Amino acid sequence: MSELTHLDADGRARMVDVGGKPITRRVAIAEGRLDTTAEVVELVRSDSLKKADVLPTARIAGISGAKRTSELIPLCHIVPLDSVAIDFDFDEAAVTIRATATTTGRTGVEMEALTAVAVAGLTLHDMVKAVDPAASLGGIRLVEKRGGKRGVWRADA
Amino acid sequence: MSELTHLDADGRARMVDVGGKPITRRVAIAEGRLDTTAEVVELVRSDSLKKADVLPTARIAGISGAKRTSELIPLCHIVPLDSVAIDFDFDEAAVTIRATATTTGRTGVEMEALTAVAVAGLTLHDMVKAVDPAASLGGIRLVEKRGGKRGVWRADA
Amino acid sequence: MSELTHLDADGRARMVDVGGKPITRRVAIAEGRLDTTAEVVELVRSDSLKKADVLPTARIAGISGAKRTSELIPLCHIVPLDSVAIDFDFDEAAVTIRATATTTGRTGVEMEALTAVAVAGLTLHDMVKAVDPAASLGGIRLVEKRGGKRGVWRADA
Amino acid sequence: MSELTHLDADGRARMVDVGGKPITRRVAIAEGRLDTTAEVVELVRSDSLKKADVLPTARIAGISGAKRTSELIPLCHIVPLDSVAIDFDFDEAAVTIRATATTTGRTGVEMEALTAVAVAGLTLHDMVKAVDPAASLGGIRLVEKRGGKRGVWRADA
Amino acid sequence: MSELTHLDADGRARMVDVGGKPITRRVAIAEGRLDTTAEVVELVRSDSLKKADVLPTARIAGISGAKRTSELIPLCHIVPLDSVAIDFDFDEAAVTIRATATTTGRTGVEMEALTAVAVAGLTLHDMVKAVDPAASLGGIRLVEKRGGKRGVWRADA
Amino acid sequence: MSELTHLDADGRARMVDVGGKPITRRVAIAEGRLDTTAEVVELVRSDSLKKADVLPTARIAGISGAKRTSELIPLCHIVPLDSVAIDFDFDEAAVTIRATATTTGRTGVEMEALTAVAVAGLTLHDMVKAVDPAASLGGIRLVEKRGGKRGVWRADA
Repeated sequence: MSELTHLDADGRARMVDVGGKPITRRVAIAEGRLDTTAEVVELVRSDSLKKADVLPTARIAGISGAKRTSELIPLCHIVPLDSVAIDFDFDEAAVTIRATATTTGRTGVEMEALTAVAVAGLTLHDMVKAVDPAASLGGIRLVEKRGGKRGVWRADA
Repeated sequence: MSELTHLDADGRARMVDVGGKPITRRVAIAEGRLDTTAEVVELVRSDSLKKADVLPTARIAGISGAKRTSELIPLCHIVPLDSVAIDFDFDEAAVTIRATATTTGRTGVEMEALTAVAVAGLTLHDMVKAVDPAASLGGIRLVEKRGGKRGVWRADA
Repeated sequence: MSELTHLDADGRARMVDVGGKPITRRVAIAEGRLDTTAEVVELVRSDSLKKADVLPTARIAGISGAKRTSELIPLCHIVPLDSVAIDFDFDEAAVTIRATATTTGRTGVEMEALTAVAVAGLTLHDMVKAVDPAASLGGIRLVEKRGGKRGVWRADA
Repeated sequence: MSELTHLDADGRARMVDVGGKPITRRVAIAEGRLDTTAEVVELVRSDSLKKADVLPTARIAGISGAKRTSELIPLCHIVPLDSVAIDFDFDEAAVTIRATATTTGRTGVEMEALTAVAVAGLTLHDMVKAVDPAASLGGIRLVEKRGGKRGVWRADA
Repeated sequence: MSELTHLDADGRARMVDVGGKPITRRVAIAEGRLDTTAEVVELVRSDSLKKADVLPTARIAGISGAKRTSELIPLCHIVPLDSVAIDFDFDEAAVTIRATATTTGRTGVEMEALTAVAVAGLTLHDMVKAVDPAASLGGIRLVEKRGGKRGVWRADA
Repeated sequence: MSELTHLDADGRARMVDVGGKPITRRVAIAEGRLDTTAEVVELVRSDSLKKADVLPTARIAGISGAKRTSELIPLCHIVPLDSVAIDFDFDEAAVTIRATATTTGRTGVEMEALTAVAVAGLTLHDMVKAVDPAASLGGIRLVEKRGGKRGVWRADA
């Protein structure tokens, strides 16, 4: 079990000590996708043409979610985020969510970017579920991270 | 935009009024899946044989996340949950997460079950990310719901 | 000090016992006003014509704030809100914020409506403060309440 | 819309990147006023003579509120506050609230001081509303800020 | 492990289903004790004679803590508390804390009363720790509970 | 009242200004004890042999509680914890809880370690209360602290 850094030698959960790690600028980009119907994408997209609150609501939820990562994920550290931004894109029957989080600190912000995507996606789910109860949120994964000991990491395309 | 119930006639977000809805027993079951590597599944599974904290940590995070749904999802109501339970299952290279939430109230608990799955999945992601940074959380969707005006709904298999 | 219901006979703060009060539908409407400059009102208003996130951000913050009233105001009860809605209106150099909150419960939702107005107003303040650091948030007061022992109450116009 | 720093070029809300800003000592002082009746001011003032919990309750609520600013105001950063203090003063029919917040960080604490005033004021409102439902909270504005790129700023008297 | 109701037959943690339990009035009283020095008790007691904020701060923290029990204790339900009150008493070198919580609901409020005592006690600890770092918080236990299936229970004296 | 650092000269509560204190590595260790019955200790201990969730649930609750200290204890600063770990030990009729917290910051983490112990202890209490409603949580005290102006401090054994 020693490969899982969040466990001690006896397999007990703990918050890993980051006190000895250097303070560096760190960036993480994550994305995910809400698979729904073409009808729902039409409703949500029109929001970026006309004046409606679907995407801003999901965006604010995602940004707020990123700030609460350490409350949601038990072994995450409290990270003072420098910035969070969330973008949406559209396929015929899917909304893509992309979040970028940065910090200047001792630990990375992968979980903050992933949490932003998940919470923004759940919020979209909430708003479309009366029309499409079968909507599915998926592909929540890290796309890129920079900073810290390992430098740059990018997901395979 | 009138099809999206969380928006008023002008497209503005609001918390929908549930005051006139009857108090009934409601159940929602949601699931999702963390796609990772066979090595990681081995590490996590061994947790259900030996004594380690991976799955309990994700389970507690998911239960706690369900209770915080109304804080995370802007237009969700505060729902007094009767119960929350989370189960894990294993494929060769994936962990399946299933959450069941119930309430006796005026509104359903779909978002509570979905949030439980997402937060438990993010917590697994956090614990395996040093070994598998490419892990992907997906298929977060409603499987079944019961109670309320529309009775029973089940996702296609 | 006996006139202040949140204090006991010795002047000690307590959460007043609402266990004996009837469950009734209750409504509260509150409003407030951010006094700023004509330039800022122009920037914010254009948001209701063009596509920008100022008002949705303040609206979502206000709705979320209403749900957290019992965490912010020490002697407030946890109230399961049936609905929250927030509207904005514009004068030449001011933005008016109006919040309506409802519940079906044992205690009123005045503080929830007032908190929604205050948090929405602080969020507007945050977004305009680089342009107008002298903006002032005021007139936060109850406009109307219905339900409960005292029936309908309306503020003087 | 480019004048509103919390929006990107497309008008989308985001948490502004403060990673490049220097760490400096920053101070913000805000104030506000609860307009009520002479009778209520008498009740509340007597609290500073006799032994009652009105002002300590509002003070603790304001300090706690300042620490939660980043949870309430969607685009605010998590700021590690160095200190928060809250003072009350009295007119014939009004209570004045003044909050001072400091940090050593990359971004100012204006919103923390303003939130402290608003939450302390709402808490007073809660405690006096049975006696004076028409009480009004206003004049919530920044009085002074120091530190950061722009140095000292003071409101006109 | 079947005797521990918070675990299922496989020993997994879950939120127990309270949906079938009747709604009744329930009361819980808990107490605890901060053991410190006579000097500190003198400082804290004088607070109940003169005008200082030690006891109100601990009292407000305890009431707020009771409202957050379901966030702190993973398997606790969200309980709409009817009331919370906290009293302090003094021995020569100890402060006794007593909390009473009530609800009208499907599950008891023992944990809410115990959490109120613990958080009020920790807050006292925080305020006296510079003078007495060896202060010890103990005897946190249930004194009495009423309501629900088992009726009245009282601790041995 | 000047000996209590959290009060100003007038006895008013405030968050003490730590802006002038140096950033150093700080460690705090706290412990406490749940006194219960030999039967309950047997049930809980078996958890460290067989596969059950009692201790992981309490451990995760304690770690999460440590991260929320500044929300629970009104005058505590927001501290970016470097690490938190919690250990359990067993007597015939008691479970001992020990928490270690560290930070690299301007203020100590005594309250974070104490809060971790209290919340882990309350969570154990919650899980055993159906079997032993008379369980008592006590001896919550600081064992050791290092770092900051006063260097090393150890409790008498």
